[in-house]
Amino acid sequence: MMGRIICVGLGPGDPDLMSVKADRLVRGAAHVAYFRKAGRPGQARRIVSGMLREDAIEHAMEYPVTTEIAFDSADYNAILASFYDEWTRRLADLAVSHEVIVLCEGDPFFYGSFMHLHTRLQGLCEVEVVPGITGMTGCWHATGVPITWGDDVLSVLMGTLPEEDLVGHMRKAHALAIMKTGRNLPKVRRALAAAGRLDEAWLVERGTMPGQRVIRLADTDLDDCPYFAIVLVHGQGRRPEAAE
Amino acid sequence: MMGRIICVGLGPGDPDLMSVKADRLVRGAAHVAYFRKAGRPGQARRIVSGMLREDAIEHAMEYPVTTEIAFDSADYNAILASFYDEWTRRLADLAVSHEVIVLCEGDPFFYGSFMHLHTRLQGLCEVEVVPGITGMTGCWHATGVPITWGDDVLSVLMGTLPEEDLVGHMRKAHALAIMKTGRNLPKVRRALAAAGRLDEAWLVERGTMPGQRVIRLADTDLDDCPYFAIVLVHGQGRRPEAAE
Repeated sequence: MMGRIICVGLGPGDPDLMSVKADRLVRGAAHVAYFRKAGRPGQARRIVSGMLREDAIEHAMEYPVTTEIAFDSADYNAILASFYDEWTRRLADLAVSHEVIVLCEGDPFFYGSFMHLHTRLQGLCEVEVVPGITGMTGCWHATGVPITWGDDVLSVLMGTLPEEDLVGHMRKAHALAIMKTGRNLPKVRRALAAAGRLDEAWLVERGTMPGQRVIRLADTDLDDCPYFAIVLVHGQGRRPEAAE
Repeated sequence: MMGRIICVGLGPGDPDLMSVKADRLVRGAAHVAYFRKAGRPGQARRIVSGMLREDAIEHAMEYPVTTEIAFDSADYNAILASFYDEWTRRLADLAVSHEVIVLCEGDPFFYGSFMHLHTRLQGLCEVEVVPGITGMTGCWHATGVPITWGDDVLSVLMGTLPEEDLVGHMRKAHALAIMKTGRNLPKVRRALAAAGRLDEAWLVERGTMPGQRVIRLADTDLDDCPYFAIVLVHGQGRRPEAAE
């Protein structure tokens, strides 16, 4: 018997937006693995709530640290690397004789944590990855307005970037999606203001999920910024206007 | 009886990558509308091949022009605007008493043609839009390599942009997705070379579809560049490396 690992993109949060393939794999899974912060239910696990087989065996991959240590420190790097090494071994061992479904929010190849296992698993066992709708796509749908038109340039930025880099990209692109906001939200707001884009910016929390909230970033209380929020600026590119 | 229009994102091409919601709406649809070039089957219609009800009524919205007239000319604008105006009227009339499913490749709010109907339909009838996996997501999965890591900046560019604009964005971003290549492919290749990124660039044709092809852009025969091709440059951002 030959097993394998299949990482399944779950999409932005609404289970109805999972792909047909992801839905089938999740419902049929005997072994399910997912990342989460220790002590939390985990967003990926929450999305598949009510979908798993009763006899499914769950493997919660709990991050040893998240924001307690500076992300660019040597300690953080070493701790995370050994965490990924350890789960690579455990999943590869399971995959000798089992099929393991790894759950991943959004799309696994777009800033996803699974990529750290994906690179390590090469050559150890068969690995397949199923695309998903990205979280930012769910968020721009939450605004009810298209994100890009015609020749618009869309830049995807992380709130963790240096402020001057953010300003530079915000000035050059037409449409913007800014992720990893959270504690970086005050910096992101200052950068948008410096780039002259703050009045066009929206903050979207929990896009496509219960409790979805869409507000102008300029009106946001900066003391209240959840991690699962994305800032969007819509492109206004070329479109054929009605003649009359 | 009150109808409505639901635009459904079909994803990158593989019907198994359609969302559960899109799959259900497409299979149940009594009225189905989709854009296509006159005389062609159309990519959206091809994706749902074998899925439609036998009694489904099809509305092929055939573009009056595509590439025969310069896209920035007043004529092109006027012809397309009246085409969208006409289909807005026809779909809104249908939606008085019917539910109409509009098919859209990829994600409808990401450079999708439906947006031109979406803006015109506001206030005329109920309109819902269902997100889909973008074509570029399908293409980066075709390469088997994650597109973005850590703090990578991803810029999405159109091959129709001026060459100097392309070069500027290609220099600043870590990861790139370049769409609307086709006849612009020689320009895109020159711009990537000028930005020092050509050796990292991949051309992906028909991502997730039969006949999928992934080749280094530097090795591509420029006389053979289909419209449904996307050029990708992968980000190489921060990741915790194995300690040993």
